[in-house]
Amino acid sequence: MAIHLGANQYGKAESRVVRIYRDTPRHQIRDLNVSSALRGRFEDAHTTGDQAEVLPTDTQKNTAFAFAKEKGVGAIEDFALTLGDHFLEATPAADGARVEIEEYPWERILVDGQEHDHSFVRSGSGVRSTIVNVEGRGAERRAHVVSGIHDLTVLKSTGSEFHGFRKDKYTTLPETDDRILATSLVARWRYDHTEVDWDKSYDEIKGLLLEQFARIHSYALQQTLYGMGSAVLERHPEVAEIKFSAPNKHHFLVDLSPFAVENPGEVFIAADRPYGLIEATVVRDDATDAGSAWHAVPGFC
Amino acid sequence: MAIHLGANQYGKAESRVVRIYRDTPRHQIRDLNVSSALRGRFEDAHTTGDQAEVLPTDTQKNTAFAFAKEKGVGAIEDFALTLGDHFLEATPAADGARVEIEEYPWERILVDGQEHDHSFVRSGSGVRSTIVNVEGRGAERRAHVVSGIHDLTVLKSTGSEFHGFRKDKYTTLPETDDRILATSLVARWRYDHTEVDWDKSYDEIKGLLLEQFARIHSYALQQTLYGMGSAVLERHPEVAEIKFSAPNKHHFLVDLSPFAVENPGEVFIAADRPYGLIEATVVRDDATDAGSAWHAVPGFC
Amino acid sequence: MAIHLGANQYGKAESRVVRIYRDTPRHQIRDLNVSSALRGRFEDAHTTGDQAEVLPTDTQKNTAFAFAKEKGVGAIEDFALTLGDHFLEATPAADGARVEIEEYPWERILVDGQEHDHSFVRSGSGVRSTIVNVEGRGAERRAHVVSGIHDLTVLKSTGSEFHGFRKDKYTTLPETDDRILATSLVARWRYDHTEVDWDKSYDEIKGLLLEQFARIHSYALQQTLYGMGSAVLERHPEVAEIKFSAPNKHHFLVDLSPFAVENPGEVFIAADRPYGLIEATVVRDDATDAGSAWHAVPGFC
Amino acid sequence: MAIHLGANQYGKAESRVVRIYRDTPRHQIRDLNVSSALRGRFEDAHTTGDQAEVLPTDTQKNTAFAFAKEKGVGAIEDFALTLGDHFLEATPAADGARVEIEEYPWERILVDGQEHDHSFVRSGSGVRSTIVNVEGRGAERRAHVVSGIHDLTVLKSTGSEFHGFRKDKYTTLPETDDRILATSLVARWRYDHTEVDWDKSYDEIKGLLLEQFARIHSYALQQTLYGMGSAVLERHPEVAEIKFSAPNKHHFLVDLSPFAVENPGEVFIAADRPYGLIEATVVRDDATDAGSAWHAVPGFC
Repeated sequence: MAIHLGANQYGKAESRVVRIYRDTPRHQIRDLNVSSALRGRFEDAHTTGDQAEVLPTDTQKNTAFAFAKEKGVGAIEDFALTLGDHFLEATPAADGARVEIEEYPWERILVDGQEHDHSFVRSGSGVRSTIVNVEGRGAERRAHVVSGIHDLTVLKSTGSEFHGFRKDKYTTLPETDDRILATSLVARWRYDHTEVDWDKSYDEIKGLLLEQFARIHSYALQQTLYGMGSAVLERHPEVAEIKFSAPNKHHFLVDLSPFAVENPGEVFIAADRPYGLIEATVVRDDATDAGSAWHAVPGFC
Repeated sequence: MAIHLGANQYGKAESRVVRIYRDTPRHQIRDLNVSSALRGRFEDAHTTGDQAEVLPTDTQKNTAFAFAKEKGVGAIEDFALTLGDHFLEATPAADGARVEIEEYPWERILVDGQEHDHSFVRSGSGVRSTIVNVEGRGAERRAHVVSGIHDLTVLKSTGSEFHGFRKDKYTTLPETDDRILATSLVARWRYDHTEVDWDKSYDEIKGLLLEQFARIHSYALQQTLYGMGSAVLERHPEVAEIKFSAPNKHHFLVDLSPFAVENPGEVFIAADRPYGLIEATVVRDDATDAGSAWHAVPGFC
Repeated sequence: MAIHLGANQYGKAESRVVRIYRDTPRHQIRDLNVSSALRGRFEDAHTTGDQAEVLPTDTQKNTAFAFAKEKGVGAIEDFALTLGDHFLEATPAADGARVEIEEYPWERILVDGQEHDHSFVRSGSGVRSTIVNVEGRGAERRAHVVSGIHDLTVLKSTGSEFHGFRKDKYTTLPETDDRILATSLVARWRYDHTEVDWDKSYDEIKGLLLEQFARIHSYALQQTLYGMGSAVLERHPEVAEIKFSAPNKHHFLVDLSPFAVENPGEVFIAADRPYGLIEATVVRDDATDAGSAWHAVPGFC
Repeated sequence: MAIHLGANQYGKAESRVVRIYRDTPRHQIRDLNVSSALRGRFEDAHTTGDQAEVLPTDTQKNTAFAFAKEKGVGAIEDFALTLGDHFLEATPAADGARVEIEEYPWERILVDGQEHDHSFVRSGSGVRSTIVNVEGRGAERRAHVVSGIHDLTVLKSTGSEFHGFRKDKYTTLPETDDRILATSLVARWRYDHTEVDWDKSYDEIKGLLLEQFARIHSYALQQTLYGMGSAVLERHPEVAEIKFSAPNKHHFLVDLSPFAVENPGEVFIAADRPYGLIEATVVRDDATDAGSAWHAVPGFC
């Protein structure tokens, strides 16, 4: 029987890198979760156990911490690109490097109405992330950046309908012209290139996603997501495509009629499972080829 | 052999009650997790399986949803007291009722800089909670309210020392006059009575806890917690005592010297386990007797 | 205003101590999660930040690892008692020590039907635990051992009824003489003394709990738990009392009638939340006083 | 600007279907977590909100429960194929259907050494799963089955080395010829066709994976995984390829030298994060084309 090594990848996952900038009394904090992985011609490591070409995952971890000081942590996209290029340089057998970074948001604590210099509270809605794939070196280098947000939980208490759907013998769902629409959004967008003001782009896209979720009168979560994605593509030429993965977090109207109590859209039970799961991509017609951009991104392939 | 039924309690846990107020176009949302339990003389239910005295947990759940409409959801403390009294009334064999409610915070989504009427994003720092214990009926009724906050993650990037501690042969910890101090705070405070403006008290205590965490120059997490608690008792005469349970979320300075890189308090690794766990109570000297207030509150007994 | 320090406790939580015995080619593994805490006269640490009396949590962690080699890990109850006594000895200001240990079960991997010497697979049903409280030293020393099991998920597909319960205007639950009964059991039993063959006692009590769950025709989860507890007290004179905390994991019969399909107890949906939560204690009439045995055990106080 | 709908998918996730077979007093239990999704030409649903082609996720859920009775639950692979074909039939706009099922293992409780008829305890090591993708109908139908196991936590206390690896300036890891090797394995294998005795194939592959993990003297987790995969391909001609995703769950030897205690491979600390993450595929040279088999499988694309 003849077999061979197929797709492979190895690295260090979830290094919790916390970088404090303390050059002035007003400290800055960057709170990251860094994962890196290398893929390529690692046959020997797998078939004979010879590790000569393998840069240890421990070294990858060390590098992430050292670079946080040596190179500094700017936008997570830049930090990920720097790490990706470095790992490819340091590992000749690697064809590609993947670096994923999550960043957790902190706000300054208010003391007498003033932002404190070095005291922070975890905050906010949504975790920012990036997944960078770098392939090749020198003239053949190609870098892909997919950034995103997750754990962005949103809800509309009206302005959501669902009707006119296909029915078969197993359909019992009543049609409705007024329901709660809620989701814990995962959005990931692929950048067309890397000449981007990452922080500005992220902030605007996050704001736009929220705003569109609010604005759009919904006939289905699919249509809401498509509208959100369209708005991003319209206003952000740097984005080639955007993908959503959105659980439809059901809120069922509770039947209070056994107690002779009316319930005109006021009391709901929030359900855990099962949930709808809507996944959709909105793509610019003239988008560049995705290449390995979506490599190993959970969800669509 | 002679045995008997000791402490017992039964109820419905974690009903996810979502109440929308839609009397005007500007909707309000209250997003609750309600748990109730009854305790008392339920020997038959346990020894013979006779359920005649047992109000089903399903009924407790129905009541929470129905009351969200019938009585409305004001402050969670009031809602919990109302439910507790009702369950005692409805169940003669019960000696006491315990109602615990968590409330999840939502903010309005901004559209063109304006708060949207019916679109929300989960937000914020910390989950508000209350644990109410009611015992007896009529003239003998006694109600206890313990309110609190959890998942309040805070961090100081300086202003924290730790030294002068006891040493034995297993002590290797270096003393430090500058470290990161971080915790995911659980605070619970017992009210002396129930004539309280609950929302105002909660908001002020939450703000005060954050402010004191920032203000206090720390010589240990114990001393920070004690200072936070003292401030609450000083400014809130309605509070009899306050308890903290605070993991010391270690952030270890990373040794970059093997790479000839200095690290003067700038790059840390955030560790998961083990963690320090500091629990402390600050009590007013003339506090009323706690009675059953802390009944079944995880932590100190 | 006069305030004071109330109940307090500090320590290191969740040190993941893995001990390999490799004296012979047939290795043994003990996989523990160790938490320790000291309580007592630690006013200075809280009020002034003076740590002179405080043995650092880091030292507690070091000791757990060092003792795993120096003293060895026998039954977790013995290991916890040894640590508790040591911490009291090492910390004069402490009045009491609490040590909690969880142990994760491993089985040997089978190769050609034979148990492998040094390869293991995580297995089994239920996690064993102990919570030890030691107070005082020398002649005044008093030690309490509460052992238990959790994550023991059991289910009966018949042999469970629920009817004859109290009804009020919010009761809609139908009575049933055949339902699924399922729970993820937490059981904790207090030993009367410490002259116990811990491993034997644990194994027998675990087996007995399972067997009784199977045997008892259930009229309510309360009655099942009481029966399980009674059996333990009957056959284990070393046990003074036993406490249960058991979520009633609802399995709802699915209504298939809209599809003209009968469902005589065959298809169920397993629900996450809400769930019933039943807590009960079975006590021997002549049980010794519990003292601090239940100190800081989540649940009943 | 011209945009279009790209890859999309919608369905109901995590329906907890519990099927009891009670035709004889000796009941059988099948405990499933069913997720289904449809993909295809759903432009209208996204762009205009017209749901005419959309079979609701609620209907998909209803069908899973109804089929559990109507068709019965045999091997999860068969159940998933049946559901996938049905959903394609019921939804003309769909090009493909994906059905994922997890199955949780239960053992019978022993009473007097005998397996009880209707009382069970959750057990075992590893959760079985399948991911089925069906595309097309009638003559053009193509079905892909990827089955697997996850949460299979294994550990070797010796027989694992790691040395000879690539070094750069950030490498500090010492080489070792004796370490603990532990992982929580995810394995997924693609079947070449659907004429398979699913239960037999699963049981044998699970056994083989465990056995090979034990047998192989490890020079790296990569080499262990490759050896495990090779063995599966050798003995299971029905398997075209197998993929692994395996965290290297680090167990660090604890330095006890400050306490003058030797630690020759006996006391370890089990670390949570970061962890190594090794992903690898072993492929048969003449494997059939994967087609959409790995569609939306987290991990490699």
